[in-house]
Amino acid sequence: MARVSQEHLDARRRQILSGAAHCFARNGFHSASMQDVLKEVGLSAGAVYRYFAGKEDLIAAIADEAFGGIRRAFEEAAESTPPPTPDVLLGRVLRGVFEGQMYGLERRACAALVVQVWAETLRNDRLSNTLAEGYAGMRVAWARLVEAYRAAGLMPSGVPADDVARTMIATAQGFIAQEALFGGVEPGVLENGLRALMSMDLQKIS
Amino acid sequence: MARVSQEHLDARRRQILSGAAHCFARNGFHSASMQDVLKEVGLSAGAVYRYFAGKEDLIAAIADEAFGGIRRAFEEAAESTPPPTPDVLLGRVLRGVFEGQMYGLERRACAALVVQVWAETLRNDRLSNTLAEGYAGMRVAWARLVEAYRAAGLMPSGVPADDVARTMIATAQGFIAQEALFGGVEPGVLENGLRALMSMDLQKIS
Repeated sequence: MARVSQEHLDARRRQILSGAAHCFARNGFHSASMQDVLKEVGLSAGAVYRYFAGKEDLIAAIADEAFGGIRRAFEEAAESTPPPTPDVLLGRVLRGVFEGQMYGLERRACAALVVQVWAETLRNDRLSNTLAEGYAGMRVAWARLVEAYRAAGLMPSGVPADDVARTMIATAQGFIAQEALFGGVEPGVLENGLRALMSMDLQKIS
Repeated sequence: MARVSQEHLDARRRQILSGAAHCFARNGFHSASMQDVLKEVGLSAGAVYRYFAGKEDLIAAIADEAFGGIRRAFEEAAESTPPPTPDVLLGRVLRGVFEGQMYGLERRACAALVVQVWAETLRNDRLSNTLAEGYAGMRVAWARLVEAYRAAGLMPSGVPADDVARTMIATAQGFIAQEALFGGVEPGVLENGLRALMSMDLQKIS
């Protein structure tokens, strides 16, 4: 059997995940069959099953890659001084998710795939673990940023960093849900909305 | 045929929706059959079909009621002077959704039902219209509150009110997603997180 380079294996793996993502986005993860995926990918069953045992493996790998991309954005952010404020950072992350990181899926198709993964996760332990790990990683990254905000004097220290982390993640998740359900969500809307919140004058509340 | 009071009809309708909500939450909206719903409700097919033509009607009615509850919370908020800040109001709305407004469903089951409705909405025009109407109503209500914040000097006027509205709705949606996926989401986390954001000192950013 001929030796194949790691580069070739990686490209093949990526080709399969991209085809699967497009197939799931178009047909719905629940309704799509492995036959549909094979047709979309354009490879034989043997070639695909060498990498992934089934739909569940495919969607878990797609979710893993998405979390990886988001984690990298956070790591970059945590290294900047001063750290980007939540509006700037969340806008950047949403743009990353929506613009091409996800196998060139259109923005709404990409958001719809995320919502489908959420629904599937409710009844699937494997996916549930994948998402729980990704979520835990994001919480840690955000909590570190909150510490950086405090160190820079941008945020008071009264509130647990993890509460801020979960609120920021919720905002991003909600925008993905809105894009999936209604379309037309511009990351600029989120940036503006967060900026307005950050500008609220709490001194005025007696 | 005996005359039945409106009160009786309303109670019967509520009994059906409550049974359907519990059935969908337990079995998944997609997997639950009308037979499952009838068994849960404990009424004959004839009695149920007099009110609802099928699963789609049932879930649309459940979504309508949920939106109604949220709208009432907003209307009350808009009537207070000064209006409750976003952290207080969103905490109140989430508590309302999670604590008993939804047919006595447990918090996580209730959140899971919402996420299932989102996934179903992606392929169902009827549900899509119901959700779009509910969302539009919430955006209008939030935008009115933003005007009230501005009038009270709590928020600067640079950002479109609708952008703030959509960001606030996104935060609530994201918390529902987190509760469905991971459980253990306390409304206090959202209140703290928003409060920390609102306390950010933007003067420090040069």
